[in-house]
Amino acid sequence: MRCEVVAIGTELLLGQIVDTNSSWIGEQLAIAGIDSLYQTKVGDNLDRMVETLELALSRSDAVICCGGLGPTQDDITRAAIARIMGVDLELDDEVAARIEAMFTSRGRRMPMNNLLQAEVPVGATPIRDPQPGTAPGLICPVVRDGEEKVVYAVPGVPREMKEMVAQAIVPDLVARSGEAATIFSRTLRTWGESESGLAERLAGRIEVLDGSGNPTLAYNASGIEGIKLRLTAKGPDQAAAAALVAEEEREIRAILGDLVFGVDDETIEAPVLSLLRSRGLTLGLAESLTGGMMGSRMADVPGASDVFRGSIVSYASDVKFDVLGVPDGPVVSLEAAAAMAAGARRVLGADVGIGVTGVAGPDEQEGQPVGTVFVGLDLGPVGGEAGPEAFHVPLFGDRLQIRQFAVITAVNALRLRLLASERDPDPFG
Amino acid sequence: MRCEVVAIGTELLLGQIVDTNSSWIGEQLAIAGIDSLYQTKVGDNLDRMVETLELALSRSDAVICCGGLGPTQDDITRAAIARIMGVDLELDDEVAARIEAMFTSRGRRMPMNNLLQAEVPVGATPIRDPQPGTAPGLICPVVRDGEEKVVYAVPGVPREMKEMVAQAIVPDLVARSGEAATIFSRTLRTWGESESGLAERLAGRIEVLDGSGNPTLAYNASGIEGIKLRLTAKGPDQAAAAALVAEEEREIRAILGDLVFGVDDETIEAPVLSLLRSRGLTLGLAESLTGGMMGSRMADVPGASDVFRGSIVSYASDVKFDVLGVPDGPVVSLEAAAAMAAGARRVLGADVGIGVTGVAGPDEQEGQPVGTVFVGLDLGPVGGEAGPEAFHVPLFGDRLQIRQFAVITAVNALRLRLLASERDPDPFG
Repeated sequence: MRCEVVAIGTELLLGQIVDTNSSWIGEQLAIAGIDSLYQTKVGDNLDRMVETLELALSRSDAVICCGGLGPTQDDITRAAIARIMGVDLELDDEVAARIEAMFTSRGRRMPMNNLLQAEVPVGATPIRDPQPGTAPGLICPVVRDGEEKVVYAVPGVPREMKEMVAQAIVPDLVARSGEAATIFSRTLRTWGESESGLAERLAGRIEVLDGSGNPTLAYNASGIEGIKLRLTAKGPDQAAAAALVAEEEREIRAILGDLVFGVDDETIEAPVLSLLRSRGLTLGLAESLTGGMMGSRMADVPGASDVFRGSIVSYASDVKFDVLGVPDGPVVSLEAAAAMAAGARRVLGADVGIGVTGVAGPDEQEGQPVGTVFVGLDLGPVGGEAGPEAFHVPLFGDRLQIRQFAVITAVNALRLRLLASERDPDPFG
Repeated sequence: MRCEVVAIGTELLLGQIVDTNSSWIGEQLAIAGIDSLYQTKVGDNLDRMVETLELALSRSDAVICCGGLGPTQDDITRAAIARIMGVDLELDDEVAARIEAMFTSRGRRMPMNNLLQAEVPVGATPIRDPQPGTAPGLICPVVRDGEEKVVYAVPGVPREMKEMVAQAIVPDLVARSGEAATIFSRTLRTWGESESGLAERLAGRIEVLDGSGNPTLAYNASGIEGIKLRLTAKGPDQAAAAALVAEEEREIRAILGDLVFGVDDETIEAPVLSLLRSRGLTLGLAESLTGGMMGSRMADVPGASDVFRGSIVSYASDVKFDVLGVPDGPVVSLEAAAAMAAGARRVLGADVGIGVTGVAGPDEQEGQPVGTVFVGLDLGPVGGEAGPEAFHVPLFGDRLQIRQFAVITAVNALRLRLLASERDPDPFG
């Protein structure tokens, strides 16, 4: 089973938008064991879209078209597919009613051109968007060289595209393929060691994996997401491929230990919130250069509210002094970071506090160079009699990178501290 | 002059790496006035690479191949191009010497397979990498249908690729084309109207633009970045193309007015900070469901510190009561939003305060459905005697989208309020 991806939009060719959709779809196809040998970008031009789709159908069993389903005059994917199928477009009353109802439910009048999105090639099946988006996807059967093939269309909006590909298109492709070989992938997320440092630690495993060729291991440095190690295995079915990955994951975790903070899409906030939750502890933050990013990432984890109490974003120095009780003096310092952590606990009524202060740039501050960051931790009841602690970390990159690395470094520090205190509950006792 | 881009690498098809190179090359080609009508991704497979390159040469005058020039066995771009040219590969002594010297200068022994990178199709010209990388690019002349065409090869490493494209390939293409036309683009960012609503307001302009075909107008809904309108014009030189865009921008701004909040990469925070700065006002925030995202975006603007004082992220209800002075009662309410804005002003010592509270999901709260958001504004000295105000906004989408839309809606509300008070400085006087 072969499925190509065609991303539609002149803005993609002009480099105004990076085509992340095709990459994501390619990954889903690989996981489902479907080969994707070509992926093409083409502009909003009917003739070239038709030509590209015909070429894809000549080489593959299926094509996923992404984009060009919106309500404006440059959204012509529906027309291109109708031409491929040799049919007309007709208004799908049910889709039209859904679009109109969506506008009504939001108390808005529907602009008439939105009805263009309810036009469907005769013989195509609309994919009903389970979310209240307005453009339905399409499943369009075609015959080429006596074989039954299929063209799918999904919107370019990533959220809508992902939902339709995962829930409608991949199952449909798998059903059509009847094949069994699948790929299983798992990503281990790490923090605290460079990419080449990880490669050195894992040199023995890499040699073994290079020998067998299955599973494979790939690295990817992903900023605030950590450095990712991706394990991919092939097997006759998902369970067999997953077992190969699980076996290798055990080997790698045994070597890397606490450097691994999560898997797949797990951010570093999730395990920290879990560790705190399991011990009935709440968390308060005090942020300076990160400006609220650390709090925002905590709040991004569903169910954070039973642990995360809030954050005092003390961007101005006198907010640090007046609200958090940081003592007069330099605010880019170990002392300020520790006092911020303690202030976060006190002001927010939290059990555990993190404080982060530093210089994101573009200019130095208090004579400290750009990238200087101090992290404070106040573990309250967990920390025994030690009181607030703080450490310095030199970071590199642009303003945004420094702020992101400050967040992951600070949250990771609390994670390691909580893990250590679990192993040795009262290190000062 | 038409030039296609072929990105080479199985990892691109599998979605392990997002192909940002093609987007960047597409942008450079557009700026140079060279049409790029198709961009293709193909895996590390000789037959498919040759087939893809032949197809590209049949449709275009030039092809840029990106990737597959490294020293490993899956780097076969050189072999594919040699086959296209109908020639053998031969060792280029100068390139070989440069690669060897690079290893020597780093005090390292050169692994023999690095010499593969010194193999060049007979008749091709190496692009000497001015950086100490190891893979040279290639300029490879071919004849198809009696016409002189060209295949370029560049490494997949973005830094090396960019340098070769900018310094060697684009000048070579421009020299071959003899054309002078260039493209100029500008993006207007809007908030407060849907994509189709914008299309209706702009129907008259769209008709004019469709008639002339230059400039063109494209829409793009970009979540927290707003809804973008991209104007692109062709002209004999940059100044002429820019003038066409500027003229159309004036027409569109006259229709859309304050819906336009910025251009190109400008976020909504930048104009708000500028408006506040010009009036000597400082800003304090109080955030609940947004968790610090609004503060983080303010802090992301370089130079924010003279306006932005901080944010009280009151995720837990009793932080709203105890720190911000929100009166007892429902915290997802107009009253709480207004009190949060006033509390932000007071606690952070700011002139102007924004408060945002609401339900991001997954569960409803206080009987309010997911997506319910209340925004409070306390304009202090700017607001005259009116005191804090608040409004309700129903938002849609997943947890992250609701939080993002809450941020842009709240910041935009302050922007509109500041613009209105500039036009009518004392509406209550």
